Amino acid sequence: MIEGEVLTTIAEGSHVATESEKLVYFFSGPRSDGSQSLRNLLGGKGSALAEMSSLGIPVPPGFTITTNVCNSYYNLGKTYPERLDFEVRESLIEIEDLVGSRFGDSENPLLVSVRSGARVSMPGMMDTILNLGLNDVTVEGLAKQSGDARFAYDSYRRLVQMYGDVVLGVGKREDTDTDPYEELLEAKKHSRGVVNDTDLDAAALKELVGEYKELIRDRGGEFPEDPWVQLWGAIGSVFESWENPRAVFYRDQYGYPSSWGTAVNVQAMVFGNLGDDCATGVLFTRNPSTGERQLFGECLINAQGEDVVAGIRTPQPITAAESDSSGLLSLEEMMPEVYEELASACDRLERHFQDMQDIEFTVQQGKLWILQTRSGKRSGRAMLKIAVDLADEHLMTEREALMRLEPEQLEGLLHPVFEDGVDRHVIAKGLPASPGAAVGRVVFRPVDVVEASKRGESTILVRDETSPEDIEGMVDARGILTARGGMTSHAAVVARGMGKCCVVGSTQLQIDYTKRQFSTLEEGGESVTVREGDIISLDGSTGEVMLGDLALATSQFPPEFNRVMEWVDAARRMKVRANADTPEDAKRAREFGAEGIGLCRTEHMFFGSDRILAVRQMILSEGAEARRDALAKILPMQRDDFIGILRAMSPYPVTIRLLDPPLHEFLPNEAEEINEVAAALELPSAEVTRRVDLLREQNPMLGHRGVRLGVTSPEIYEVQVRAVIEGACELANEGVDVTPEIMIPLVGMPEELRLLRERAVNIAEQVMREQGIDIDYSIGTMIELPRACVIANQIAEHADFFSFGTNDLTQTTFGLSRDDANRFLPFYLEQHLLEVDPFVQVDREGVGGLIKLGIERGKSVREHLKIGVCGEHGGDPVSIEFFEQQGFDYISCSPYRVPIARLAAAQSTLKA
Amino acid sequence: MIEGEVLTTIAEGSHVATESEKLVYFFSGPRSDGSQSLRNLLGGKGSALAEMSSLGIPVPPGFTITTNVCNSYYNLGKTYPERLDFEVRESLIEIEDLVGSRFGDSENPLLVSVRSGARVSMPGMMDTILNLGLNDVTVEGLAKQSGDARFAYDSYRRLVQMYGDVVLGVGKREDTDTDPYEELLEAKKHSRGVVNDTDLDAAALKELVGEYKELIRDRGGEFPEDPWVQLWGAIGSVFESWENPRAVFYRDQYGYPSSWGTAVNVQAMVFGNLGDDCATGVLFTRNPSTGERQLFGECLINAQGEDVVAGIRTPQPITAAESDSSGLLSLEEMMPEVYEELASACDRLERHFQDMQDIEFTVQQGKLWILQTRSGKRSGRAMLKIAVDLADEHLMTEREALMRLEPEQLEGLLHPVFEDGVDRHVIAKGLPASPGAAVGRVVFRPVDVVEASKRGESTILVRDETSPEDIEGMVDARGILTARGGMTSHAAVVARGMGKCCVVGSTQLQIDYTKRQFSTLEEGGESVTVREGDIISLDGSTGEVMLGDLALATSQFPPEFNRVMEWVDAARRMKVRANADTPEDAKRAREFGAEGIGLCRTEHMFFGSDRILAVRQMILSEGAEARRDALAKILPMQRDDFIGILRAMSPYPVTIRLLDPPLHEFLPNEAEEINEVAAALELPSAEVTRRVDLLREQNPMLGHRGVRLGVTSPEIYEVQVRAVIEGACELANEGVDVTPEIMIPLVGMPEELRLLRERAVNIAEQVMREQGIDIDYSIGTMIELPRACVIANQIAEHADFFSFGTNDLTQTTFGLSRDDANRFLPFYLEQHLLEVDPFVQVDREGVGGLIKLGIERGKSVREHLKIGVCGEHGGDPVSIEFFEQQGFDYISCSPYRVPIARLAAAQSTLKA
Repeated sequence: MIEGEVLTTIAEGSHVATESEKLVYFFSGPRSDGSQSLRNLLGGKGSALAEMSSLGIPVPPGFTITTNVCNSYYNLGKTYPERLDFEVRESLIEIEDLVGSRFGDSENPLLVSVRSGARVSMPGMMDTILNLGLNDVTVEGLAKQSGDARFAYDSYRRLVQMYGDVVLGVGKREDTDTDPYEELLEAKKHSRGVVNDTDLDAAALKELVGEYKELIRDRGGEFPEDPWVQLWGAIGSVFESWENPRAVFYRDQYGYPSSWGTAVNVQAMVFGNLGDDCATGVLFTRNPSTGERQLFGECLINAQGEDVVAGIRTPQPITAAESDSSGLLSLEEMMPEVYEELASACDRLERHFQDMQDIEFTVQQGKLWILQTRSGKRSGRAMLKIAVDLADEHLMTEREALMRLEPEQLEGLLHPVFEDGVDRHVIAKGLPASPGAAVGRVVFRPVDVVEASKRGESTILVRDETSPEDIEGMVDARGILTARGGMTSHAAVVARGMGKCCVVGSTQLQIDYTKRQFSTLEEGGESVTVREGDIISLDGSTGEVMLGDLALATSQFPPEFNRVMEWVDAARRMKVRANADTPEDAKRAREFGAEGIGLCRTEHMFFGSDRILAVRQMILSEGAEARRDALAKILPMQRDDFIGILRAMSPYPVTIRLLDPPLHEFLPNEAEEINEVAAALELPSAEVTRRVDLLREQNPMLGHRGVRLGVTSPEIYEVQVRAVIEGACELANEGVDVTPEIMIPLVGMPEELRLLRERAVNIAEQVMREQGIDIDYSIGTMIELPRACVIANQIAEHADFFSFGTNDLTQTTFGLSRDDANRFLPFYLEQHLLEVDPFVQVDREGVGGLIKLGIERGKSVREHLKIGVCGEHGGDPVSIEFFEQQGFDYISCSPYRVPIARLAAAQSTLKA
Repeated sequence: MIEGEVLTTIAEGSHVATESEKLVYFFSGPRSDGSQSLRNLLGGKGSALAEMSSLGIPVPPGFTITTNVCNSYYNLGKTYPERLDFEVRESLIEIEDLVGSRFGDSENPLLVSVRSGARVSMPGMMDTILNLGLNDVTVEGLAKQSGDARFAYDSYRRLVQMYGDVVLGVGKREDTDTDPYEELLEAKKHSRGVVNDTDLDAAALKELVGEYKELIRDRGGEFPEDPWVQLWGAIGSVFESWENPRAVFYRDQYGYPSSWGTAVNVQAMVFGNLGDDCATGVLFTRNPSTGERQLFGECLINAQGEDVVAGIRTPQPITAAESDSSGLLSLEEMMPEVYEELASACDRLERHFQDMQDIEFTVQQGKLWILQTRSGKRSGRAMLKIAVDLADEHLMTEREALMRLEPEQLEGLLHPVFEDGVDRHVIAKGLPASPGAAVGRVVFRPVDVVEASKRGESTILVRDETSPEDIEGMVDARGILTARGGMTSHAAVVARGMGKCCVVGSTQLQIDYTKRQFSTLEEGGESVTVREGDIISLDGSTGEVMLGDLALATSQFPPEFNRVMEWVDAARRMKVRANADTPEDAKRAREFGAEGIGLCRTEHMFFGSDRILAVRQMILSEGAEARRDALAKILPMQRDDFIGILRAMSPYPVTIRLLDPPLHEFLPNEAEEINEVAAALELPSAEVTRRVDLLREQNPMLGHRGVRLGVTSPEIYEVQVRAVIEGACELANEGVDVTPEIMIPLVGMPEELRLLRERAVNIAEQVMREQGIDIDYSIGTMIELPRACVIANQIAEHADFFSFGTNDLTQTTFGLSRDDANRFLPFYLEQHLLEVDPFVQVDREGVGGLIKLGIERGKSVREHLKIGVCGEHGGDPVSIEFFEQQGFDYISCSPYRVPIARLAAAQSTLKA
């Protein structure tokens, strides 16, 4: 959200500081000059610190040098506006007054941190320098003041190291990639005979400071003793980092202008490790896993932030309630007043930012300081509960709560997942083709999966690749793993349709069908052999293959799901349909809220073992008559398929796509199957092999498929249309309300659709006469070729609806085969030649440009042309926003993504 | 030309005849009502007859019923305007007066023909009924009048047959496809014991008339004895035929409106077979083969038009000059007065129509009649000579002469062709992949071609398909024949580039490499086996494969070629370049007038036997270093290639496309080659095989190729750019003027081009520094993906030029693989789902729409962006007109098509 807001302000631009302009914004309590609304001027960090301070949250005092100073710095030959020095000194005095210590004071020195902060978070810039203000004199003051010489020298050592590295440029050697500071530290520990950094005493650390300074001097630098020189050095370093190559590259990638500049934040240091009245901790304002309204986090008494992360000591809980279960005392029990203050700050921050917060805090000598707050990451379950609770608590409206939801986070609620934190013994990786988690025994032959299933065993089907004849084994397996194929391989497409966990293209796998085993190389390089019957676990969301039986999290719809979905459906404009090929899929899709089927692929129906032989006979027969005979066997089965789907989805519309893939996809490869077909056709096997070979194509994606089959072999579509209309009539006679939509794929020329529509209408009319009943049906086309978009006006003359097939449209627009793209697309994404995978998120400029053109031209002929999408982008939230903007009537996606799509569609409507 | 003119008048529309409107236009000499300008009203035939008549050409008198009467007929419930009957009778009386005979007169009957004639020639309508006016009475009058009863009854028999078939609908039986009139005729000949129709005497023909009438009566019809009933029946039949299904289908295909209507022409019959003062003949006003200005044709004394065609008697020449060589008396000698009149008519017609005419004439009893004139078909050689002569004779301007030329007709002048009329023993057909004619001995192995070539033998290389390693054999062969592959297969592309005769995809061929023979099925179904060493002839323009040594026509540029090309180049706006990959091709292209190279494909350079091993090493190496080592071997060879081409084309620009095809195209398939590569890489053969397999792609057209290779394997393009610039610098240092243009293929994303351009510029700058000389070079891209057109503005930011790769743009826009399209594209063309093959003629609406968009958007960023085309459409005249309209700067085509492209470009400029 915040990124989006910021981007809308790009146009405002940025300025060089004027003579009268305020250059430094102080923050501490009500004395704060800034606020969140000054994000462009103060950067994200500076404006947030000011906002928290204004709210009365205890934030260590500090100040922010504006982004305009950064612009001045670059425009004025790397010098600062004259008044800056004065304003910085004024502000520092204010800090000194508030903290009660003085910068550079030998007795009671003020230490500060210096941080960069542009209007958006940006990698590549200088991050943080801590403990600034220490030198050989003030370190002794800190030691006395804190009563902890070791603490003081460790702080000093860290400053010299950070300053030497970041400001003076004395860091890692590029040639050897070794860190000279770490080398000196290791040597020191070795000479003192200790193992941990913490075992070094003050004297050793003091020696180390000297050695660090020596190192810097050897490399031509000099650590400045003067705290003011330190400060100006650090400020300059932040400004310099704005134009360093990594930051520039990052900005270029995102199109952020150099004129934004970065701010610099200077803030008093606080310490949680100055005694037992000190502490440090992190917490969430609600439970990030369940969403329960309770502080949830951990802290350590007398410790630094690092220590919590390092895990050397066991952290203590925040609340007394938690301490009951852990046996450890909680912050609430140990520092009840601080706890009260913290709880109250949490409440205020949550109300103010209207979201569950992730907070860092430090207690220094009994005084609470909040160092950071931000929206907290949470599970899908927690996301729903928090949204409903926040609305119920009137912290925000239902609509606002809805806009905060992250659609993708629903995914975890719908599919099984492995328990958090279980040990994953990963033996191979592949492409995450269909999400979910599956555990089962390895089986190589589909027929054995079916057998095992009958015995009640869970199995994972492992194949080089799958093909139509494996369909029944795929249905019965818990998960599918293949060694070859991409995200649109047979296994991937079929598994996604079934919502079944699937990992494809795991190229390390070497499968030996005869020995019934596969071997693979682990990450370490060791070879593992897995035999049939061994148990493996598959993670379809990460592509990981693991040895053994990983524990599955018990997943259940949280009660808030339905509540949220009510909001969603009330807000949403576009209809959400599902891509489903079977009555089972259709039923599941309805459970998830689908309002129709946007894509029913009839080819999957051709793969069943009861009909694949007839399909092959049909394809390999010569002459329309022989094909018609074979099709006659298929007709009643297809009719039953359609009856099942239309019934399951009644009264919603069901879009049935006529046969699309090239016919060779249905043909047998193995001798046994070829013989079977040869026998059925009464032909020699060699002749069948010859015909199979003749049908192969160089580029099947661009070959004899879709409407081209319909044109050249009219009998195929004839039988399919007949099956659809016969099925619909039968249901209508039973009183079932049906709305079939017949969809013709791959149309690129108006004449194709004109001809095929005419043929389909003739058959439909004939069937309705035969059956004595009229049903409502429509005929439309998939728009999945660039040409179809360009001449959409001509195509619309023959179409009741357009369904954009964005998968193929992306392939043809980019000239990019999804199956082959894995050789270079990952590289493109890594190198930022492409920001997102266009098969995941619709490419707005190229493919989107054609979609816009297609809609505009289509509607110029038919004002009320129905517009939908049935490519996989129909389930992607970012793409869904685009479809909303283009005025689509509906989107369609796989059943498991229907709730995600509903939420994303609602958010898009609200945004629009 | 005429079709084009007519189409511009579509908008005028047509009308129903008004009450006062003239319905019938008489024609005969200066008494003619019509003229050529009334084509829409009188149809093409009617207006031409009127025009000729007005000129004073002797045309048998007649009249035309207007197209508006046709419209009235349909709009008034198939009735005629009241006045029509009167006007027809009036006109017929005029004919009677002029001819001196009367319609239906028993002594001296007038006979007429009835013909249809719409504003454009249109199949499907009624054609002609002759001899109308004959019945049982008038036939006797004709017999007496002509003194030839056999002639009279044969004319009558033909009338009854035509009338029965066309007007009364008694024709072929649909069930048996037999012609009942022919059956009766055959039976009559059998019963009379004669063989030829002409052997039947008047009595037999009279019997036949009776039998024909009987047949018509049996089928429910009745031949009308009344000539007026005959006439109105025939007129009605013409109007009815306007809406018959074939005519309607044809109009729909071309978008001709039904409202155009057809005219009806009624004309007095003349006969050339009424005695020795009669004759009939056909002639061209100039020699259609050489263009010489002399009447050229043949005639028969006392004969009908049919007799000339039937070839029973040897025709006589027209001029005395010709008769010298043939020994036969000429028309000039036999009928000097008629000849004078004919020659004068020819001269008038030629001047009037400003073109060589193809004329039909008949002499009836010493009187000359011209029955038809039209522009005559001619050879390419004659076309040029006639154009130059007509301009020199001031019959037209040079510009007009230029516009009359047919660009495609130049093709025959450039390639060898077989002699006209040689007997073709066709044993197989394939796709005409590269035009020309070739004769040679069949050889199956490329290495044997090279050997035979050393011995001076001509060979035809016959392969299942060719691959890169066959290149040297292909160079040495006279022609190439493959059993597999399409118009863009390796063999086709390479052969076209070399201008070598090639036939591909001759699927009947079954090649047995071990037996060194192929077998095929002849058209009759008989199997032929051809052994190595047997001589075959290939016709690359028709795709025919013939047994034996067919005679080649000696072809030579006619002297008029250069003259015409001077006109062409003066008129032309667009530059014409050639697609050429070698210095030899570049030289040939220059000879044909190329002004640069628009596409130099560097992949063909990788195929040479001196480097293919290094190329394979490069591809199969792992890691950039190993690839660089292999590339280092290729660099000097590539540099030499570029030096050769740049020198041959100096000072014109040479566009060099960096490597485009997927790398697997270069990889070996055969064990021997795999072993060779394995040895060079010091790897086991199995590992090489594995790597080769890994590189295979599902859809290579949409795979890892073009700029995608450049992105992922930078070292390949680096070496290529270095080779180009090093070569260019070397030539520049010699004082040779060079203009290399580096072209990056398959760009779809601006970042691709930005990155690759940057890399290329870096190398170019570096090389120029090394060489101490600056050369002029530019960097641009092929626009061959729909996405590139849509976001052309972004791409143009990094491009000096756009070269539209219309081959791939057509493939991706249509989603159509050219290699696979032969399964359905012929069917589409046959069924008129597509009017033209989009790979031959650029698709104006779809692909053209994207091209327009690409130019518009590209120029919005770079006003002077250079625009070219390098797809094969660059050599197609119709496409060239489109490129002219879009403001292309240049077109590029194969060297042999350069003259055609120059002419077409000039015509397009003149039209624009």
